[in-house]
Amino acid sequence: MLRVLEERQFPFGELVLLAGSRSAGTKLCAGGKNLTVAQIDDESLASVDVAFFAAGASVSRRYAPVVAQGGGIAIDKSSAYRMEPEVPLIVPEVNPGEVSRHHGIVSNPNCVVIPLTVVLAPLHLAFGLRHVTLATCQAASGGGHMLVAELESQAQAAVAGDVLEHSIYPHVLYGNVVPGGWSMFGADTEEEVKIIEETRRVLGLPELPISVSTVRVPVAVGHSASVWLEFADAVDPMEARAMLADAPGVRVLDDPESQVYPTPRDAAGTDDVLVGRIRQDLGRRGGISLFFAADNLRKGAATNAVQVAELALVAG
Amino acid sequence: MLRVLEERQFPFGELVLLAGSRSAGTKLCAGGKNLTVAQIDDESLASVDVAFFAAGASVSRRYAPVVAQGGGIAIDKSSAYRMEPEVPLIVPEVNPGEVSRHHGIVSNPNCVVIPLTVVLAPLHLAFGLRHVTLATCQAASGGGHMLVAELESQAQAAVAGDVLEHSIYPHVLYGNVVPGGWSMFGADTEEEVKIIEETRRVLGLPELPISVSTVRVPVAVGHSASVWLEFADAVDPMEARAMLADAPGVRVLDDPESQVYPTPRDAAGTDDVLVGRIRQDLGRRGGISLFFAADNLRKGAATNAVQVAELALVAG
Repeated sequence: MLRVLEERQFPFGELVLLAGSRSAGTKLCAGGKNLTVAQIDDESLASVDVAFFAAGASVSRRYAPVVAQGGGIAIDKSSAYRMEPEVPLIVPEVNPGEVSRHHGIVSNPNCVVIPLTVVLAPLHLAFGLRHVTLATCQAASGGGHMLVAELESQAQAAVAGDVLEHSIYPHVLYGNVVPGGWSMFGADTEEEVKIIEETRRVLGLPELPISVSTVRVPVAVGHSASVWLEFADAVDPMEARAMLADAPGVRVLDDPESQVYPTPRDAAGTDDVLVGRIRQDLGRRGGISLFFAADNLRKGAATNAVQVAELALVAG
Repeated sequence: MLRVLEERQFPFGELVLLAGSRSAGTKLCAGGKNLTVAQIDDESLASVDVAFFAAGASVSRRYAPVVAQGGGIAIDKSSAYRMEPEVPLIVPEVNPGEVSRHHGIVSNPNCVVIPLTVVLAPLHLAFGLRHVTLATCQAASGGGHMLVAELESQAQAAVAGDVLEHSIYPHVLYGNVVPGGWSMFGADTEEEVKIIEETRRVLGLPELPISVSTVRVPVAVGHSASVWLEFADAVDPMEARAMLADAPGVRVLDDPESQVYPTPRDAAGTDDVLVGRIRQDLGRRGGISLFFAADNLRKGAATNAVQVAELALVAG
């Protein structure tokens, strides 16, 4: 968050860092200044103009309304308000106009939904989206920094020839592919439900059919997914590629013959959604298939939140 | 191969190991005996009853006919004969009857096609398969032992804080997800084309529409895939689960609430195809979704080949 604010030269006068009692007192460097994290409370938020919430949903539910009541705007990266009709859910490349109807809180979508909708929006506009199927390969950092640390420990153990242990996560993630680890809503993961609901909301397509399977892979940073799309009419992959090449927030990497396609390693540290392997779906006449990768910590979270704040400032 | 032959107590009288000049002279232990690999030539194959080919397609094309002409049977794990109409392509749980029409050569399908068809066959029989979508997560060992070694070197470098290098593979596989690395047939990987063609052939459904995306992940052993299926009629996931629980070669692991589902780590070293996350496809009324994992070196290759040989011996 702090790095993205600096990189984008976010026009703040004063920067205040707030956290719960466990992290209060921590010292951080931002904008060339040494800052101490203070304890969050109602008073500390009352006069804030823009607040970024990067804690859990319960913290956002408790404190985002305080920011709104004080006349400020809360940009919430948690899932607390994503499905609240009163709260805009925004991907700046997709539905920037929504920001104007906020009442002091704006929500940031899930880290898969942001890159997915960046890719889908221009294609929907041109061809009329009718169905989405996606199989994700999600990075450990999406499960929190403790999971990244556990994955690193497992790598060390594997290289040393030791037994691989796990405690944060229900399975060993190193050298594995795990189609779970999220809370379940019946037979579906919480992540699958979020992807369906939030994608529909961001695209303004409340009935869009979405088939989704979420999977965790031994990658530190960078979510990726295999995607199949159907439209009102048959779509030429060349046309879709041209459309995506012109789309905001997208970088097309698509020359598989020369081994050029998106990977999480290429996406990590960038703000673009990388898209490639754009091709005819051999299984559905007129459909197309593609693969995307994006940095789940940047465009999937922090960068999107800062872009939303920039939009809100322009909107006034 | 040798381990599987021993485990299954394959009834051979004499075991002969043959290879090209590079590997001839190597000593291996099999069936409690020390054996020396001899140089392959026509004469060495003339009196063989059953020959397993585990080299490249060109070796199979050169020598499998010699075995057939000598009255023996060649079980070919390469891609050489998979689409030859005269050569049966067999997954013993799916189309065992095909073996009787061989003319001295039987082909073993691709390492994704074997577990996929083991899962699809009982469902097709019960419900009438109409469409398959699958996104694979394929292990490094599917790309050869050199790729496994490169992945291990990268793990060592990562743990040591060194730069990750690659030479075998077009990208760093460690901590990455790579939607390529195969030869291309136009916009599709060779692997995608094989999966479509061979799945249709094994199931005896030459028109079955298959949408597929192949991806390599940093896993040593165990291919896995997210799968969506459509049938002639709506399918109840409970019924599909019961069907799969009774199917040969399948082990259902499906209690995601308790974090029970298939992973490559669980599949490695076993001969079963592990299936779980069997659920309604929220994006297509009546469709179902599932996830499978299987050992690509065992059921995906060696075990299937030995099972085929067992079938051929019974068929006479």
